[in-house]
Amino acid sequence: MSLKVEEVSKIYGKRNVLDHVSIDFESKKIYGLLGNNGAGKSTLLNIINNRIFSTVGKVDLNGEKISDNEKTLNKIYLTSEDNLYPSKIKIKSLFKLTEKFYGEFNWDLANHMLLEFELDSSKYLNKLSTGYRSITKLIVALCVPCEYIFLDEPILGLDANHRELFYNFLLETYQDRLRTFVISTHLIEEISNLLEKVIILESGKVIVDENVEDLMDETYILSGSIDEVESFLDHVQVLGKEILGGSMTAYVKGNLSRKSLGNVKVSRMNLQDYFKKITNRKKAK
Amino acid sequence: MSLKVEEVSKIYGKRNVLDHVSIDFESKKIYGLLGNNGAGKSTLLNIINNRIFSTVGKVDLNGEKISDNEKTLNKIYLTSEDNLYPSKIKIKSLFKLTEKFYGEFNWDLANHMLLEFELDSSKYLNKLSTGYRSITKLIVALCVPCEYIFLDEPILGLDANHRELFYNFLLETYQDRLRTFVISTHLIEEISNLLEKVIILESGKVIVDENVEDLMDETYILSGSIDEVESFLDHVQVLGKEILGGSMTAYVKGNLSRKSLGNVKVSRMNLQDYFKKITNRKKAK
Repeated sequence: MSLKVEEVSKIYGKRNVLDHVSIDFESKKIYGLLGNNGAGKSTLLNIINNRIFSTVGKVDLNGEKISDNEKTLNKIYLTSEDNLYPSKIKIKSLFKLTEKFYGEFNWDLANHMLLEFELDSSKYLNKLSTGYRSITKLIVALCVPCEYIFLDEPILGLDANHRELFYNFLLETYQDRLRTFVISTHLIEEISNLLEKVIILESGKVIVDENVEDLMDETYILSGSIDEVESFLDHVQVLGKEILGGSMTAYVKGNLSRKSLGNVKVSRMNLQDYFKKITNRKKAK
Repeated sequence: MSLKVEEVSKIYGKRNVLDHVSIDFESKKIYGLLGNNGAGKSTLLNIINNRIFSTVGKVDLNGEKISDNEKTLNKIYLTSEDNLYPSKIKIKSLFKLTEKFYGEFNWDLANHMLLEFELDSSKYLNKLSTGYRSITKLIVALCVPCEYIFLDEPILGLDANHRELFYNFLLETYQDRLRTFVISTHLIEEISNLLEKVIILESGKVIVDENVEDLMDETYILSGSIDEVESFLDHVQVLGKEILGGSMTAYVKGNLSRKSLGNVKVSRMNLQDYFKKITNRKKAK
């Protein structure tokens, strides 16, 4: 199974919100979809889920076009920041409605999650705080029978304990039944060790589409005297440089393993560091 | 100037959402208002700002009761997660409306923030993403002439660069004109070095109301052999203990300075660690 986004662009007025985006979402992987505010993440998720139309390009699931195809659309699920539910509905009614629509619903997991998050399912959706609205959406997303689950800012308003609880439930349910999760979030550090693949959008373009492990294996922070650090920068991609007095810190991507590093100190970048460097280059000192 | 919450309780049905809450918000300080989902933070903020009524208790500004007193209410501002604005309004119209209501508006700062956040003020509020809706609310909050500014989850949906930008603007405007900010957030680590005072709510009760610096000066993590660590625990408040094999890690609050610590390793807690320990004791191992 594979979900392919092919050459998708979306133009609003004069603005190119998505610009020739192509992504091949593999089956049974956990993806991070990262990007700063305004990068186009939500637009992309809405197009994949047929909630808005692309200006050009298409989205296929197993070779079948997603738009106008109810059978394929039932295999993907997006929990969005927009409130698309009827507002005066109880949580348990929402679960039943979801079961009706998707044909199945994991009630065991839902009840377990309600208990752990201390959420009463006889409450009305519109009476919940931001945090508990997020939790309700998360429960639905983990309990639908779909093969592709898209989570748009799933942890909005969740406290630290609840975020940890969610990450644990996500991993558990993923191991129980492998499927693809695509998680869009601004809290990169917290989620990075759940991710197998990462896609980074900037100004509507895909600028990174890689395995997280591979990526982390070839990104480094070099620090030392300006001359020494500079001598390593020819054969790597320089993501950023900082100079303080006579010393330099450089953020680089590439293969350093075969070179002697002398007095230059080498440390690892984490995904959040990498993201900040690559999406904020104009502001990098 | 001082804003006093006195013995405020709020009961919904059988649930005591706020339980005899008393807080004295000093003038010209930056407060963190922390608490897990459901602790009562938003209810408290809404009562202080007269959007909902307390079951018992009162809120005074300089000795004057806030409810039914337009003059005192104009001195405090709450930016809330609820969308209380007319939905089909442009950002700049919202700013003008705010100026009319509060008599003043810092247009210089607003324009500077719009520029730095790359937000076009001719956009409609209801067309904005969660992140940009948060940014709009932040601009309004920093530009009103009020003496008490309450920010309820101000950085919902903001990317890392935008969060940093907001923290900088907050500090700048605070230094330009001292007033009280009360910030409710789940991203404690990021904001902790902005805070002078911290209030922690749990199950509707105030469990911490302290200076951040003092608090951080007397919270420690002790690790070593079980016997050695145990010998220090009599005269301090134990927030949590973890045992692994023959060694123990204890999270404590108290004065350790006069004791010899032997082989016990001592390290500092940060505010996020402290928060997690103190609000999650039943789950602590």
